[in-house]
Amino acid sequence: MKIYDVEGFPNPARVRIALAEKGATERVEFVHVDVMGGEHRTEAFRAKNPDAVVPCLELDDGTHIGQCNAITEYIDATFDGPSLTGQTATERARISMMNTRAEAGLLNAVSTYFHHATPGLGPDLETDQCAEWGNKQRDVALKTMAYLDGVLAENAYLAGDSFSMADITAFAGLSFADFAKVDIPANLTNLIAWREKVAARPSIAA
Amino acid sequence: MKIYDVEGFPNPARVRIALAEKGATERVEFVHVDVMGGEHRTEAFRAKNPDAVVPCLELDDGTHIGQCNAITEYIDATFDGPSLTGQTATERARISMMNTRAEAGLLNAVSTYFHHATPGLGPDLETDQCAEWGNKQRDVALKTMAYLDGVLAENAYLAGDSFSMADITAFAGLSFADFAKVDIPANLTNLIAWREKVAARPSIAA
Repeated sequence: MKIYDVEGFPNPARVRIALAEKGATERVEFVHVDVMGGEHRTEAFRAKNPDAVVPCLELDDGTHIGQCNAITEYIDATFDGPSLTGQTATERARISMMNTRAEAGLLNAVSTYFHHATPGLGPDLETDQCAEWGNKQRDVALKTMAYLDGVLAENAYLAGDSFSMADITAFAGLSFADFAKVDIPANLTNLIAWREKVAARPSIAA
Repeated sequence: MKIYDVEGFPNPARVRIALAEKGATERVEFVHVDVMGGEHRTEAFRAKNPDAVVPCLELDDGTHIGQCNAITEYIDATFDGPSLTGQTATERARISMMNTRAEAGLLNAVSTYFHHATPGLGPDLETDQCAEWGNKQRDVALKTMAYLDGVLAENAYLAGDSFSMADITAFAGLSFADFAKVDIPANLTNLIAWREKVAARPSIAA
């Protein structure tokens, strides 16, 4: 199994944390994609992942799986270790719901702000910006932080009592927010405490 | 089990088609939400679904599940009938990937065009438009149609040989595209033929 990615990028981080939680990091070969040089937009890479983004999973039979959630679901189903996507239908639905809220409302919102309303990855790559939309998405990210803080006032983790993919996605979203200089408001004390707790997990701190 | 929705809206259509495919429509109580009157933005509805959108699932124990994919995954796991989200890890990953491509690239892109670059649901509801971004998303929708046409040149359905949630999502996306007057280009003959085939399924035609 291969993962095409860039270490440190937000969606690749979700995959790498999921693998570490499952104790499966050593079972994957990572292949660096030169995103800064535009490799993700070449025909050769698009043949693997027409979305032209990282990460992309390559199975041993040559099948390619794009889209981060599809990859992390595959990892969770394939490797032993604690479930990251839930076991009962209700657990799975709650984790999926919270993961999507963290993804759409935080990680993707910060990403859109970064790529559209800041210099992003630079003028060679950011060729189709829309600053007005990017700035609206910054507001969405801040609203989502406040929402997540409220969830964490009542739950140890975003989808209930157990750590899950929803936490991984939100954690990666906050790391991206740091990078894009979208600070967590200081009054969101539940979110800040949860973040410290998650950062101390061996899958992240190690 | 209750579903809060508006019959005929795009994401509610995904849930209703999934239920019909599972033969489970009669096992759900549908509760109409007066979206045109702004009911989805009231405090009472936000207590059920803080995303302030339909559909929202209410379980018999009072748990609320928002986010369309979480709801359709729950339906698929709970009711008998053909699997819509896949059984092996690889099938599930492929369906998830194609479902997300159809959702982000088609249904959500058309939705953003409709709500931001057209009068949408009218001036009382469309209070924060961004026409520049909306028009870019129309281009995304057209590119996704071309991509899906290419997939369907080689596969009977979007995720392979079997009908799945990815087909339901794309079908709902094309219905929304009709409504928003984003026509399928006439040269996309695979997509057009697939759409006729899907429209004839009892879950949709009946």
